[in-house]
Amino acid sequence: MTPAPVLALTTGEPAGIGPELAAMLADGMPAGGGAPDHRLVAVGDPALLAERAAAIGRALEIVELAPGQPVPPRRHGVLPVWPVPLAAPCRAGVLDPRNAGYVLETLDRAVAACRAGEAAGLVTAPLHKAVIREAGHAGFTGHTEYLRDACGAEEVVMMLATDHALHGRDPAWQGSAALRVALATTHLPLREVADAVTGERLTRLLRILDADLKRWFGVAKPRILVCGLNPHAGEGGHLGREELEVIAPTLEALRGEGLTLDGPLPADTLFTPRHLADADAVLAMYHDQGLPVLKYAGFGRAANVTLGLPLVRTSVDHGTALDLAGRGVADPGSLAVAVALAAEMARRGLRH
Amino acid sequence: MTPAPVLALTTGEPAGIGPELAAMLADGMPAGGGAPDHRLVAVGDPALLAERAAAIGRALEIVELAPGQPVPPRRHGVLPVWPVPLAAPCRAGVLDPRNAGYVLETLDRAVAACRAGEAAGLVTAPLHKAVIREAGHAGFTGHTEYLRDACGAEEVVMMLATDHALHGRDPAWQGSAALRVALATTHLPLREVADAVTGERLTRLLRILDADLKRWFGVAKPRILVCGLNPHAGEGGHLGREELEVIAPTLEALRGEGLTLDGPLPADTLFTPRHLADADAVLAMYHDQGLPVLKYAGFGRAANVTLGLPLVRTSVDHGTALDLAGRGVADPGSLAVAVALAAEMARRGLRH
Repeated sequence: MTPAPVLALTTGEPAGIGPELAAMLADGMPAGGGAPDHRLVAVGDPALLAERAAAIGRALEIVELAPGQPVPPRRHGVLPVWPVPLAAPCRAGVLDPRNAGYVLETLDRAVAACRAGEAAGLVTAPLHKAVIREAGHAGFTGHTEYLRDACGAEEVVMMLATDHALHGRDPAWQGSAALRVALATTHLPLREVADAVTGERLTRLLRILDADLKRWFGVAKPRILVCGLNPHAGEGGHLGREELEVIAPTLEALRGEGLTLDGPLPADTLFTPRHLADADAVLAMYHDQGLPVLKYAGFGRAANVTLGLPLVRTSVDHGTALDLAGRGVADPGSLAVAVALAAEMARRGLRH
Repeated sequence: MTPAPVLALTTGEPAGIGPELAAMLADGMPAGGGAPDHRLVAVGDPALLAERAAAIGRALEIVELAPGQPVPPRRHGVLPVWPVPLAAPCRAGVLDPRNAGYVLETLDRAVAACRAGEAAGLVTAPLHKAVIREAGHAGFTGHTEYLRDACGAEEVVMMLATDHALHGRDPAWQGSAALRVALATTHLPLREVADAVTGERLTRLLRILDADLKRWFGVAKPRILVCGLNPHAGEGGHLGREELEVIAPTLEALRGEGLTLDGPLPADTLFTPRHLADADAVLAMYHDQGLPVLKYAGFGRAANVTLGLPLVRTSVDHGTALDLAGRGVADPGSLAVAVALAAEMARRGLRH
């Protein structure tokens, strides 16, 4: 029997809720009993983690791991850590640009571990983009792009997934389970979206989505639903021509490569049982076309997955929540889903 | 005791599913027993309605009403009709431009009845825009605009509502009930949306939304959640400046008039219990920002409401479904919600 895969959890912005979410997660394990299917190691400052755990009243044993030391199995109340020291003292809720380098170092450490085979994937707690830019990394646009460049990947795909969509708990949706929504464009002003949805872009993203649903999610022949760009998917050209001129021809060419694609479909009819029932993922054309319904359905149990990397990467679907930090009131639901999802992907990827 | 309000149901495109949905609705009443809170009269060709009811195996008694004859109470298996004759014979599923004038005439008849006090509101089955345009009404853009002009209204607001959102059936969403989503822009190509969201437009629409939630829905002091235009509501200007330059100042001015407005909020955090719990409606900036989640939540039980008219108007949230017509397989769920919603609005409006 192979040992459970190791997941590296970067604890993110030290002034945010990341450190205490890591503490909550460690304190809450194992919830349902049984042997965990993964091992977890936090990446961050051990003293910070201990201090934040104490602040929220969690009795947490921090185990600093030396280089090369194996990561122990998950145990209730124990958090193994690959230590990275803070650059400056940190108070919950108070950003300090002096610690921007620390945040990036935790990511570098986790990526190096994945590349060296010490970890099978990484799970990221939120960082704070503005303070990293302020600290002199002017071009920093977020985790996803940073990891793309760190891994030398050409293109990545942002996908959100629920562990168990709201509809899965409703009798009307019997048989439905997780919902997965990938985005053709991500953090762009709305007025730039239409020009960014090119055939080349859709081709690259759909190939990655198809390949990674096979590789990391064990789907033999993924069926992907593709949204139109315009309302009613353009209504035959009356409400925009991008479906006719860009999206439909691109999907047709990709079907020739063997991909199974439905669309372009109107976004407001796609997210219904008739269409979702046998779909493995949805590709939305832009952020607010796909994510409101995903987060409504997931109800605090959604996580973000980056596809197109040579490693597993998941993250929470929320920000640093500086106003909540240090108070123990943040919800670890999304982080728990992100860890469970990374574990599932890592197990499937290892068998691949 | 005043008699139950009369709702005029226009049966829409004769080749579509409208006529048989009207038959299903009449045949299915009263479902739960008890006296219906409204009276219903179809507007259309009586022979067509009888034929379509027979085709789907419904034993329906069609009662043609003469001018001035009172509309009887709703009874199982009985459909009162204000007769409007077809211009040409009609086969299910086959469009014929010669009947375009008939479709518009049913609308004119229903509006005239509302204006004359014979009906308190109208409920519309779907029409087929393209065939009406083809028949020579080149500028025809849909029910909503046609009714706006017929009523001499300056501006209307499209709002979708569920009778009972999916979350209302889920324990996690206890206490939530209907979801209502109004749109700041409707059937526009995505690339035209950003320029169409002006302060003047938002001001007009929010005033109508506020006034009509009071008038037709009995909400004393409506609380309206307003989406941003860009992802993350612009993230402080990093992802678009419309929130800072247009939306936020407009909301601030309207708060000065006494409106209760939350926003601009990111669309993907707005549709969660924390925000929706005490909201009476959501204003989305465009079609695919608001409707996918509404239809997911409503699960075939959503209806369309036109606000800003001097009368009650609701409609189904789907099209003519020519491929299903005449087969009795169409789902009357949305029409049932549209009728129930119109009845509720009419009762409240009468008390107003």
